[in-house]
Amino acid sequence: MRLTRYFLPVLKEDPKEAQIVSHRLMLRAGMIKQQAAGIYSWLPLGYKVLRQVEQIVHEEQQRAGHIPLLMPTLQSADLWRESGRYDDYGEEMLRVTDRHKRDLLYGPTNEEMITDIFRSHINSYKDLPLTLYHIQWKFRDEIRPRFGVMRGREFLMKDGYNFDLTKEAALHAYNRHLVSYLRTYERMGLQAIPMRADSGPIGGDDTHEFLVLAETGESEVFYDSQIADLRFGDRQIDYDSVEECQAVLDEFTSRYARTDETHDESVFNQIPEERRRSARGIEVGQIFYFGTKYSEPMGATVVGPDGARVPVHMGSHGIGVSRLLGAIIEASHDERGIIWPEGVTPFHAGIVNLKQGDPSVDSACEALYRDLTANGLDVLYDDRDERAGAKFATMDLIGLPWRITVGPRGLKTNTVELTCRRTGESQEMSPSEAVARLQAIYQPVFDAAF
Amino acid sequence: MRLTRYFLPVLKEDPKEAQIVSHRLMLRAGMIKQQAAGIYSWLPLGYKVLRQVEQIVHEEQQRAGHIPLLMPTLQSADLWRESGRYDDYGEEMLRVTDRHKRDLLYGPTNEEMITDIFRSHINSYKDLPLTLYHIQWKFRDEIRPRFGVMRGREFLMKDGYNFDLTKEAALHAYNRHLVSYLRTYERMGLQAIPMRADSGPIGGDDTHEFLVLAETGESEVFYDSQIADLRFGDRQIDYDSVEECQAVLDEFTSRYARTDETHDESVFNQIPEERRRSARGIEVGQIFYFGTKYSEPMGATVVGPDGARVPVHMGSHGIGVSRLLGAIIEASHDERGIIWPEGVTPFHAGIVNLKQGDPSVDSACEALYRDLTANGLDVLYDDRDERAGAKFATMDLIGLPWRITVGPRGLKTNTVELTCRRTGESQEMSPSEAVARLQAIYQPVFDAAF
Repeated sequence: MRLTRYFLPVLKEDPKEAQIVSHRLMLRAGMIKQQAAGIYSWLPLGYKVLRQVEQIVHEEQQRAGHIPLLMPTLQSADLWRESGRYDDYGEEMLRVTDRHKRDLLYGPTNEEMITDIFRSHINSYKDLPLTLYHIQWKFRDEIRPRFGVMRGREFLMKDGYNFDLTKEAALHAYNRHLVSYLRTYERMGLQAIPMRADSGPIGGDDTHEFLVLAETGESEVFYDSQIADLRFGDRQIDYDSVEECQAVLDEFTSRYARTDETHDESVFNQIPEERRRSARGIEVGQIFYFGTKYSEPMGATVVGPDGARVPVHMGSHGIGVSRLLGAIIEASHDERGIIWPEGVTPFHAGIVNLKQGDPSVDSACEALYRDLTANGLDVLYDDRDERAGAKFATMDLIGLPWRITVGPRGLKTNTVELTCRRTGESQEMSPSEAVARLQAIYQPVFDAAF
Repeated sequence: MRLTRYFLPVLKEDPKEAQIVSHRLMLRAGMIKQQAAGIYSWLPLGYKVLRQVEQIVHEEQQRAGHIPLLMPTLQSADLWRESGRYDDYGEEMLRVTDRHKRDLLYGPTNEEMITDIFRSHINSYKDLPLTLYHIQWKFRDEIRPRFGVMRGREFLMKDGYNFDLTKEAALHAYNRHLVSYLRTYERMGLQAIPMRADSGPIGGDDTHEFLVLAETGESEVFYDSQIADLRFGDRQIDYDSVEECQAVLDEFTSRYARTDETHDESVFNQIPEERRRSARGIEVGQIFYFGTKYSEPMGATVVGPDGARVPVHMGSHGIGVSRLLGAIIEASHDERGIIWPEGVTPFHAGIVNLKQGDPSVDSACEALYRDLTANGLDVLYDDRDERAGAKFATMDLIGLPWRITVGPRGLKTNTVELTCRRTGESQEMSPSEAVARLQAIYQPVFDAAF
């Protein structure tokens, strides 16, 4: 993409309304624009990252064998009356009346609707196990929306639902989700720690939240420092294997890690003092096992192997897709702007032309742009007629992990400069070497795709 | 995808509520489920096609140089008060009040919001031309939603908006959209004819609707039969060239083609009688030039080359993404079910195992499945323990363009059967030949991707 043809409305000044760094940087980098309290437009750069994050979530869900579908944003109130949550949900639920005076609501979550889909179509245990998920916009009418997309009202969420014959099978689905979430977050360059949490209005006994440690997190968390050393890495796993998934769950949840809702000082104090940590965390996902809480009242049953009809065991599993952008920025930025992890960056690299209008520099930039694109790399070429300082500041602000700087002096020796946004280190090399280097850097990202 | 692990709830009986074939087939093929009047869940097969259609629209928009972003579903009523449409829009607009008693609405279209984004960030003619688009769920509270996704209330639409300094530049944007739409529909296997239409509540003088001819169409259309012979084909076009885009517009709009709203009997009768056609059509897109209708009241201005501030010239351009699935099926089906064009099919091919459980047939199917997948083909393998007739009926119903049938008899001579859904013709060949044949069939589809 040539910057002169793009729409990247960066702001020079810090917007006053932003209290936390991710909100400030998303506004400054021209990623979002507020349209109403807690409701945002995703401007081109923000939309591009949102799609990357969404794509990773899709890929990891499908790798785990989960099936995508899409439920609508508006739901019939009658479904929620069946489960009893229509009255329970309170003012956070946005209620709507259509022209025929029928009660609708903007879905804050989808347990009822997915249960309705299940009961309409599935009749036998032979069709189990089944996990269905979607990535769809939700609405929760927060009384005080804040922190940009971190606590918006209209937000994008992945929510998945497992249907199993037995509690044991449903717990395997729970474990499978935990494993797939670990992979998902790591591909985004995040460490998200599973912590024992409270189930809230979804219900159920077993639940873990995934938290990214950050000073601006809304939750207080307590954990054993050993847990911060765990990485899922690039291990291969058979998602059908009960043992393998259980082993990962055990590895990642056997040490103390809880949110303030479930924190237990006496258990915490059994950890050696030097390993006790309290910190703040951003919740980026949650998994639940809630058994027959919805299947029983809503009649989601199957005929079991013995011919008897039994309610299915369910769980639900969410990832806050739009909120993740805020979390990633909170975890990865410096005083000059965002630093995107390679897995989610909107462009793989930026090209800065130091002397726009100089035929040899222009043509070197064009050639580089063409070569990188031909090699599957997505590049933002700053072809504006601006001074170098302004171009560097924009690149730093929007956080592309790699920058290639092209100027008349270097070109005399066929040299460009490759700069790493995170370390600030630069290296001189030929344009073709820069292409090869970037290809090598991004190969693991391409390999991680499903 | 193995069918035993998929969620494909096909119906044996024709659903009573479906009046037209696309609605009936989408329900029977397990593509959609109605959740409320005019509000649907997209079950896995339907969702997969929806994503394909969406992807083609994205690619062709970006090929034309248009920039994607994403505006929210809910909008502030205040924006619509500025343009004067809040009161004009009537009962089709779904109005919502949040917990703080602020007026919101579920966007039926986005002229106001995109104009707001523009005026907040763009100040100079140097940032023009600019075309922004998004693909987002919309809501129109139709008094009588019907025909499944063809006239739903919650529907997915691509809407794009061009901003230009002059009327001439805006008309080039109009022409560019017309060209990109021709390509878009042809990639989906559709012939959509641009017809002079009425602008309705969007406003403006210049507008064309794109119509797919089908008996079940809601619009009556009148056209010169010569227009039905036009194809855009695989011609290359420079979207920046005013002349090239204008020539395409002239070619595709110089013959008589109008909807009943703008039909003029006296002009129509000047066509030789044998070329006069009247038919029914399904509207799948519309482009508008409306000048300064929104930019003036909403203050979307730029500083021009002479230093004076002028309102920008705009147009908006829509494609009915979710409705397209209905239109494609209306245009491509037979008595046994859907026939997907290769460009949008949910799976490139199906494998039917004639003797599930027979080790040699099972392993031949697995090998074929692996080979096809390794070659970038997306395959549905019917590995159910069902008789052949039921498997064939399912494949025909869901409409995969190609089927490979694998049975013990053929395997004795290393032979499988490749069947074309559209013609019904079958050919025997080795499994590796079938893979090569399918690769060749789909190469143009892959090449068409951006």
